[in-house]
Amino acid sequence: MNILWLFAHPDHRSLNAALRDDGVRALRDAGHEVRQSDLYGMGFKAVLDADDYPPRGVDPAADDGRLLVGDAQEDAWRAGSVSPDIAAEHEKLAWADALVVHFPLWWFGPPAILKGWFDRVLVQGLASKVKDEDGRTRRYGDGGLAGKRAIVVTSVGAREASFGPRGIHGHIDEVLWPLHHGTFFYTGMAPLPPFVVYGADRLTPADYPPVAAALRERLRTLGTTAPLPYRTERGGDYDERLVLRPELAAGGTGLAVHSE
Amino acid sequence: MNILWLFAHPDHRSLNAALRDDGVRALRDAGHEVRQSDLYGMGFKAVLDADDYPPRGVDPAADDGRLLVGDAQEDAWRAGSVSPDIAAEHEKLAWADALVVHFPLWWFGPPAILKGWFDRVLVQGLASKVKDEDGRTRRYGDGGLAGKRAIVVTSVGAREASFGPRGIHGHIDEVLWPLHHGTFFYTGMAPLPPFVVYGADRLTPADYPPVAAALRERLRTLGTTAPLPYRTERGGDYDERLVLRPELAAGGTGLAVHSE
Repeated sequence: MNILWLFAHPDHRSLNAALRDDGVRALRDAGHEVRQSDLYGMGFKAVLDADDYPPRGVDPAADDGRLLVGDAQEDAWRAGSVSPDIAAEHEKLAWADALVVHFPLWWFGPPAILKGWFDRVLVQGLASKVKDEDGRTRRYGDGGLAGKRAIVVTSVGAREASFGPRGIHGHIDEVLWPLHHGTFFYTGMAPLPPFVVYGADRLTPADYPPVAAALRERLRTLGTTAPLPYRTERGGDYDERLVLRPELAAGGTGLAVHSE
Repeated sequence: MNILWLFAHPDHRSLNAALRDDGVRALRDAGHEVRQSDLYGMGFKAVLDADDYPPRGVDPAADDGRLLVGDAQEDAWRAGSVSPDIAAEHEKLAWADALVVHFPLWWFGPPAILKGWFDRVLVQGLASKVKDEDGRTRRYGDGGLAGKRAIVVTSVGAREASFGPRGIHGHIDEVLWPLHHGTFFYTGMAPLPPFVVYGADRLTPADYPPVAAALRERLRTLGTTAPLPYRTERGGDYDERLVLRPELAAGGTGLAVHSE
């Protein structure tokens, strides 16, 4: 497979950097092609702004100077005029069969530099508001990135039980909902169960080898692991308002109702 | 009250900018003091890196050159040496009785520039790993920002039902869990129910007045609205592993078990 490893940690001597190096090596040893976007190393621009998407259209009168983000993205993308750093990521995305999205969990989400990668690179037309031949939106299980797999690799300071089904921080799969469901699955990618290093603040050098071995084992099955079993938008489970049909997970609420 | 309005939208002619102007005016008309952090307007640096927290300690031998983010934050904060832009936000935070955190929802989370405000400003010692006199961590209902209130004001393109209890995008309160619970409540702030503008992509100028009126009404009760009823860490509901005790929400899982 072709694998794009997105990495967002500010210290190249960190636990995560060591895991990244081990992971990339394991994938290559297994015969995969690996490319990286080391966002800190690249000095990746995190903040979406008007410079990313040159002014729309050729008729100045048609452009009122407002930045309508989605439309500006799509116009620039269709015209081939998105900024070069975004275009370079699009090329890697098109090439990849799978993404490894690797970051320390900060305030229960990705570091800003990685959030900015999603904000800036996943442009409308490519990753959202993608239409099929009948003009219907392809989303949640289908879309511009359909056919690819994606896995989160992350580290947290807390212990595993506190991120479990009744742990105080929330179950890790639900904490990661905006990424797993709202980003990967939304754009058509198959989200795989995450690889999480718990208690990262307390890890000693002696603790590292089994963690690295566990990551290598997860990566070994990157192409075959069953994805998280989210319901697709077009599979018949949702009504025309995009609400889960009453006979499914009857009476239930919570994010778990969206899994089969 | 003293109110800090955090704003993160790249276009000062946007719907959100208009709502921000209306909201700030309404708060001032009601006699509150308002200060703003307009992150795009300030050119706020989104990406946490070593420049934010000058090298630790006075003994070079004690510093191996690694960026241990939490410790570097806390050392710099205690030494009064965090970068000036972070110090300025700390001064506003200390002044504020309430925060309005206002942004368009991008990929089911805050824009990178706002995520970066949390990453960089909410430093260890001030906002995490805050200890009481007995050395116990103050967190989830207590902490360095205890006594303050916080409300999300956001806009989404989708319609309300699709963000409801069984909507495909996930219930908005659960989509916002990393902010409400993992950031506001974690640091001791009282998270208020969010103000969400649905169908923002389809709003016309004629639709604006009732939206602005609804926001003004919500802001009128900023000081009195009941917070989201999350369970506190120290209230006895969690065991020593930080897992919800079995007799509470017995057999239940999902983020809702963490509300009373």
